[in-house]
Amino acid sequence: MTVPFARPVAHLLSMADLDPASIEETLEHAAALKAGRPPTTAGAPLAGRSVALIFEKPSLRTRVSFEVGISRLGGQPISLHDSEIGLGVRESVQDATRTLERYVDAIVARVRDHSLLEQMAEVASIPIVNALSDVEHPCQALADALTLQEQLGDLRGRQLVFVGDGNNVAASLILVGASLGMNVRAVTPTGYEPDPSIVERAVLIGRGTGARIELMHDPVAGVRGADAVYTDVWTSMGHEAEQEARQRAFPPYALTASLMANAPDAIVMHCLPAHRGEEIDSEVLDGPRSVVLDQAENRLWVQMAVLQRLIRPRRATLGYPEPVQLPLAIGSRTTGRPARG
Amino acid sequence: MTVPFARPVAHLLSMADLDPASIEETLEHAAALKAGRPPTTAGAPLAGRSVALIFEKPSLRTRVSFEVGISRLGGQPISLHDSEIGLGVRESVQDATRTLERYVDAIVARVRDHSLLEQMAEVASIPIVNALSDVEHPCQALADALTLQEQLGDLRGRQLVFVGDGNNVAASLILVGASLGMNVRAVTPTGYEPDPSIVERAVLIGRGTGARIELMHDPVAGVRGADAVYTDVWTSMGHEAEQEARQRAFPPYALTASLMANAPDAIVMHCLPAHRGEEIDSEVLDGPRSVVLDQAENRLWVQMAVLQRLIRPRRATLGYPEPVQLPLAIGSRTTGRPARG
Amino acid sequence: MTVPFARPVAHLLSMADLDPASIEETLEHAAALKAGRPPTTAGAPLAGRSVALIFEKPSLRTRVSFEVGISRLGGQPISLHDSEIGLGVRESVQDATRTLERYVDAIVARVRDHSLLEQMAEVASIPIVNALSDVEHPCQALADALTLQEQLGDLRGRQLVFVGDGNNVAASLILVGASLGMNVRAVTPTGYEPDPSIVERAVLIGRGTGARIELMHDPVAGVRGADAVYTDVWTSMGHEAEQEARQRAFPPYALTASLMANAPDAIVMHCLPAHRGEEIDSEVLDGPRSVVLDQAENRLWVQMAVLQRLIRPRRATLGYPEPVQLPLAIGSRTTGRPARG
Repeated sequence: MTVPFARPVAHLLSMADLDPASIEETLEHAAALKAGRPPTTAGAPLAGRSVALIFEKPSLRTRVSFEVGISRLGGQPISLHDSEIGLGVRESVQDATRTLERYVDAIVARVRDHSLLEQMAEVASIPIVNALSDVEHPCQALADALTLQEQLGDLRGRQLVFVGDGNNVAASLILVGASLGMNVRAVTPTGYEPDPSIVERAVLIGRGTGARIELMHDPVAGVRGADAVYTDVWTSMGHEAEQEARQRAFPPYALTASLMANAPDAIVMHCLPAHRGEEIDSEVLDGPRSVVLDQAENRLWVQMAVLQRLIRPRRATLGYPEPVQLPLAIGSRTTGRPARG
Repeated sequence: MTVPFARPVAHLLSMADLDPASIEETLEHAAALKAGRPPTTAGAPLAGRSVALIFEKPSLRTRVSFEVGISRLGGQPISLHDSEIGLGVRESVQDATRTLERYVDAIVARVRDHSLLEQMAEVASIPIVNALSDVEHPCQALADALTLQEQLGDLRGRQLVFVGDGNNVAASLILVGASLGMNVRAVTPTGYEPDPSIVERAVLIGRGTGARIELMHDPVAGVRGADAVYTDVWTSMGHEAEQEARQRAFPPYALTASLMANAPDAIVMHCLPAHRGEEIDSEVLDGPRSVVLDQAENRLWVQMAVLQRLIRPRRATLGYPEPVQLPLAIGSRTTGRPARG
Repeated sequence: MTVPFARPVAHLLSMADLDPASIEETLEHAAALKAGRPPTTAGAPLAGRSVALIFEKPSLRTRVSFEVGISRLGGQPISLHDSEIGLGVRESVQDATRTLERYVDAIVARVRDHSLLEQMAEVASIPIVNALSDVEHPCQALADALTLQEQLGDLRGRQLVFVGDGNNVAASLILVGASLGMNVRAVTPTGYEPDPSIVERAVLIGRGTGARIELMHDPVAGVRGADAVYTDVWTSMGHEAEQEARQRAFPPYALTASLMANAPDAIVMHCLPAHRGEEIDSEVLDGPRSVVLDQAENRLWVQMAVLQRLIRPRRATLGYPEPVQLPLAIGSRTTGRPARG
């Protein structure tokens, strides 16, 4: 398990890599960036820095939001397709990581197999950021949390309901919800519950934050009392093989207008891309309670905050031009103390 | 039909989206950029802005000229292959467009099916630019117009002859020629005439500008009196299926030295890539009257002008660092009036 | 043969394009960049400049090191896959080159067939840089030379031993070693010697620098007395067909701990990616004498130096914003004379 912001190299592989205070700080940082009040005064904080973006799966939101965010911070994004670098085939993951860290300041990777990220983090002297694995999607969860804050204000005690497949998106969402003191309910078909280790960890986090974690199978009862109802596609990337079984189990969990009538005050969330008419109806996805495009936009802002916080000042000899000294946290803005990350 | 430069969001899908005055202004703007006299004084006019470039077809000129142009204006180009984003497959065109507009300031797209551009423009709050569709190629036509101006000076009353397939390139060329008051002749095999709706519109435009539009089938008579003779490949991208029929119909329309002897004063134009020995002989393509490389270069300058004119100042909170206020037109440079686009 | 730094357009296709003095200057320039003492004072020396990177083969080191290096110099890298541009298929190499030079300031290309680079250089008014061909890999050789200098200091009279396949990497290494006055030994199976023309040229260069060039077949005798032992994969990209014959001939040439015991003072070099357990054992590749990651990092610095030296000031009208005047060599730093390249 990596330890965020406290050791020489911190990574973001799991939502659980950030403790509740770090999550709050990251969201404050992101909100400040979005409001045009960047929490640093030093011009472009990633000037002269480069970030490698590695994609083993197709990507629109992830690639564009990271590329734009890095560029706005003054840095250089370099998007690499796995077919180009042949991770684990043309070259071992470790060798590729040790080589990349000679050129770039962080690696953001979307991978089929989460263990690839762990192998990278084990040898890397630069931050590794999970941009979607089969296990978690922490950048999405941070964007979701920022969206929830924008919509609901203080999140403590609010009811977040995830409906559908207990997948990677659900896992990170449950963890961030627990960290922010929300009551989180996962409503899934039997056999599609979130990973028990994730639920266990969320329960543990909840002991500190007051969050209550529930698993349910009845979608109608499940969405009652919700402040936010979240769903995702039923066949995630990588699960195409079991598509048929899933198409039988999931239909009752579709976010239809009829199901959503049981949660009259809830906002509607989805991490996109959506399969309209499957896990969500168009009238719900495009309806007045939908915040899905805000979620997409917030990927940009939270990822900028994550990268600015994770990327450390480079040793002086490795910069051209002279690298800027970066504050790694935004504590200074609210507390007056020098940033320490 | 989109209305250029007059409403909150303007697009460039068709050459007919620009009225003659806007075309003249865009060309003046492009010529000023090329001459090193940029018509803005505010440093990099696209600083902090990003432009998505979407490619459904292969590209050299389009991708490199757009990427370089955006970068020279201080902006960030992000090139996306359709295989990455799965437009209409992985996600609806509308959803992809609504997501992209949260991150970027304009979308430039090369598409197989023109209606894709129209679907984008219908929902987009940012400009959509046609970088080649099956129907039109307006960026090429603007580059061609700038090249014609460089070679011939005032274009009114000059004779432009397009020889070959009445395709997308021909369509935009006929429209821009008509808008600039040129006499335009399309010389094609029977059955390969330009789309009647394009010709009709060009005739209408010509009533205002004095342009005369003609369709002919005889290549020898067709090139007589030409100030410029233009051709393009016989089998455009997307038409590979009918290649055989085309190889029978088109040979008499090849720009050979012998055919060009009938137009002794004409410059030779081609939008490249060329099929040497098919629609044009090497001695003509590489000859002293050829301006094909100037056409290619001018893609850069006209596209810079188009983007600078189309991309509006971003709302203050969405920029990091503070966005620059952009004049959207260059009227101020020649008329002393503030730019209004 | 191109002449470096002396004529209006210089290219880097072969290591032999640089005379010994130019190599020394380039390495000094690279070392200064690495030490954070850039030998120019004019801000970002490639500001407003773009470089096209063309890849006919997969790439990690080459693409990332060039993209990062160009960006750190203030320039814009544009990576193009051959599938996008269809060199020689969709368009002739000459036409593509003449078009690209209207947009960009240099072309860096990784090609299957070296003659492609020569065809480009023949028509190009901008520098062409070989980023790996079937014949040579000069950027790697410069990175290797910088690494050797870092490890061994003055290289004159030092013993460099290449063990394995007399391939493109070996060719450029032999040439750079000869130019720097090293004694160079190529130890290969019979039939896999370096190209005779390369050896001949290295011997000629050695007459001026004092380098001694040897070919051997016995790996044990071959590595004796080495200051550096270098190997590369046995089946280079493009040679996959003969893989089986190679797997029979090469095993005795593997850099095992046992073979390396015959060269107790030698550093270990490899250009990566490595096939662990084939041409080199993991304990050697990862051992304390291995400098392979320094070689990888030095790709960045030597390529920055090469590009800064090759790219000429652009004609005034083709720049936006105003181009910076570049010193093309670093002679001024050490000699006080104005740079002349």
